[in-house]
Amino acid sequence: MKAELIAVGTELLMGQISNTNAQYLSQRLPALGIGVYYHSVVGDNPLRLEESLRTAMERCEIIILTGGLGPTQDDLTKETVAKVLGLNMVYDEISAECIRKYFSCLGKTMVESNLKQAYFPEGSKILYNDEGTAPGCIIETENNTVIMLPGPPREMKPMFEKSVEPYFSDKIGEKLSSAFVKITGMGESSVEDALMPLIDHQTNPTFATYAKTGDVTLRVTASGENREEADSLLNAALEKVKNILGENVYSVSGEELEEVVVKRFIKEGKTLALAESCTGGMLAERLTNVSGASEVLKYGLVTYSNEAKEKLLGVERETLENFGAVSRETALSMCRGLKKLSGASVCVSITGIAGPTGGTPEKPVGLVYIGIASDDSEECIECRFNGNRERIRTLTVINVLGNLLKM
Amino acid sequence: MKAELIAVGTELLMGQISNTNAQYLSQRLPALGIGVYYHSVVGDNPLRLEESLRTAMERCEIIILTGGLGPTQDDLTKETVAKVLGLNMVYDEISAECIRKYFSCLGKTMVESNLKQAYFPEGSKILYNDEGTAPGCIIETENNTVIMLPGPPREMKPMFEKSVEPYFSDKIGEKLSSAFVKITGMGESSVEDALMPLIDHQTNPTFATYAKTGDVTLRVTASGENREEADSLLNAALEKVKNILGENVYSVSGEELEEVVVKRFIKEGKTLALAESCTGGMLAERLTNVSGASEVLKYGLVTYSNEAKEKLLGVERETLENFGAVSRETALSMCRGLKKLSGASVCVSITGIAGPTGGTPEKPVGLVYIGIASDDSEECIECRFNGNRERIRTLTVINVLGNLLKM
Repeated sequence: MKAELIAVGTELLMGQISNTNAQYLSQRLPALGIGVYYHSVVGDNPLRLEESLRTAMERCEIIILTGGLGPTQDDLTKETVAKVLGLNMVYDEISAECIRKYFSCLGKTMVESNLKQAYFPEGSKILYNDEGTAPGCIIETENNTVIMLPGPPREMKPMFEKSVEPYFSDKIGEKLSSAFVKITGMGESSVEDALMPLIDHQTNPTFATYAKTGDVTLRVTASGENREEADSLLNAALEKVKNILGENVYSVSGEELEEVVVKRFIKEGKTLALAESCTGGMLAERLTNVSGASEVLKYGLVTYSNEAKEKLLGVERETLENFGAVSRETALSMCRGLKKLSGASVCVSITGIAGPTGGTPEKPVGLVYIGIASDDSEECIECRFNGNRERIRTLTVINVLGNLLKM
Repeated sequence: MKAELIAVGTELLMGQISNTNAQYLSQRLPALGIGVYYHSVVGDNPLRLEESLRTAMERCEIIILTGGLGPTQDDLTKETVAKVLGLNMVYDEISAECIRKYFSCLGKTMVESNLKQAYFPEGSKILYNDEGTAPGCIIETENNTVIMLPGPPREMKPMFEKSVEPYFSDKIGEKLSSAFVKITGMGESSVEDALMPLIDHQTNPTFATYAKTGDVTLRVTASGENREEADSLLNAALEKVKNILGENVYSVSGEELEEVVVKRFIKEGKTLALAESCTGGMLAERLTNVSGASEVLKYGLVTYSNEAKEKLLGVERETLENFGAVSRETALSMCRGLKKLSGASVCVSITGIAGPTGGTPEKPVGLVYIGIASDDSEECIECRFNGNRERIRTLTVINVLGNLLKM
């Protein structure tokens, strides 16, 4: 089946936001047997949206629209779809109730315009929104399936996973089985090179890699006459992938690295303490984004200043003066101080130069020292990362998480 | 002038990369008096590209294609444009020389297929590529200007800035002026309601709002016979907006909230210390993402556990037991302890329930206490947020930043 993704929003055409919804949906849809053939972006303009929708309906069976479902005058996606399909807009009391509840939970007064979100093209299957006020909907016509989802990714993604994926898997029959293999410590092309003998000339399962900073995801999709056959093909392929990539594979179910780390620590009854300098709390933030992290993370310190390194961690002034704040010696001293302070099973210290300023020829931007101390070992890893401030901070955090798993 | 951006590449339709080129070009083109009306993405398929190009040429004067200029068989952008425009492909010796030089500088042998990149539709203005092998080009027809740029952003951006911007600014006078007004403490629909008398039936300046969690951006764009007239219309509108929205406006130049906070603290010579529980380092991470934050942030503590609250901040066990970790009393006690420890001018403590677990009827998920202590005042703010863990954490962080600005 062919799909076109239409993102609606002038903010996309002004470059205020990037169309990350298209990337996300393009990654997920192939696992449902749906090929994405076009992405389109139009502004909050009903005539241009109408024209784009008509074009899309001629060339693809499935149209997924994101955005334009909100309460403002600009939000015209549902109205435009209704017009193109010749449908009336009808009021849904359940949606209205959900929207009212959303505001009352917040202790806020609902502006009346919000009830615009409770109207849908006649005959819609309504997709309720647990994360915001704008519900989505699905309409089936003779030749097309038109799906409308909210624009904000934190509303769109849960709605897609909760409502749209099951909708399609019911339709298609469960003959497809997918896994998202998560890999760290290898670049995308290294992963592809390593898997080449497996991937090359392969049509079932299919493989596709996606990279983001420091992290590679491999999608494996198998199809079979029935679900069992698909699963069995998939599992055989996953075994081969794990054999080839070894401990670089940290999940085959799409979990994020920090989730796997927190679960491992909980399982082993271990605790963790952090002292972050250049990452400024990014590692703590990422770990505590996992529900349950409170069992694991005893202390997180952002010791950006030398004063904080001395006062909280007991790093000696001589160490800082003789070797510098960014040095193996300081990293290890931070780590030892943290161990004493926290008593956590594993202590991590980070000190480095994230840039853009602060680099020297001997200690360039991207130099990072990571100290890791457990009950019976202590090590310091020297890393040299490339890129801007955000990339250096992100690569540092991923490197620490990867190392915590390999311990 | 109206523009359409067409990105060519199957990797975009597979979700392997995001179309960041469209965002970048959409941000730059309005400053040249060019409005972006559509983004499209098609795969490496000449028939579908041809069809998309014909549609674009009918609805927009300017077409910018990115991608598909490389040496492989899949790269068919120039050939397809030539076909649609009825032009021959001609060889450019200078480009061929540049490509040869590029390889010899890298110490590599050039594969002959690379010379495919030295062919252009007849009559092209060629844009040489300093960062890679694929040159771009511009073709003017009676009704359209078709611009072809390489796909990799690190090649596309310099080519755009070096060649395409000067090409257009020669053609067009500067008659547009824009500002990005940043607003916190109000939702998107409240902002629109408040500005309705100003926005409604307004055609110059134009207004558009963009929301992300806890933060609203209002774009105001004025046009005039010349730049001065545009600027003066814009400034008059900005004054009105500021009068209506008051201290909720924190920037009219598109700066992020954390940047404004860090700058304000630097300007006033103040320092900051943080004790974060439920936000787990997110506030520290956000502040330290601003270069220069080291002057401001003395300490950041992630005191997720009661032990950390007692040991680092001196919160008494009775306070934790009698009122709970998530309480006004604990927030204030954390704040006082932090003031004693850090001596920072402003101390912030955060304790709350970010969910999804841990809520009770009396203390539901989303309940957050924020303590703020300065040299001469102390307060505790009770917040009740809605949404998932990430949203609650983000809203908390934005609320703190907004309150730091209002102090």
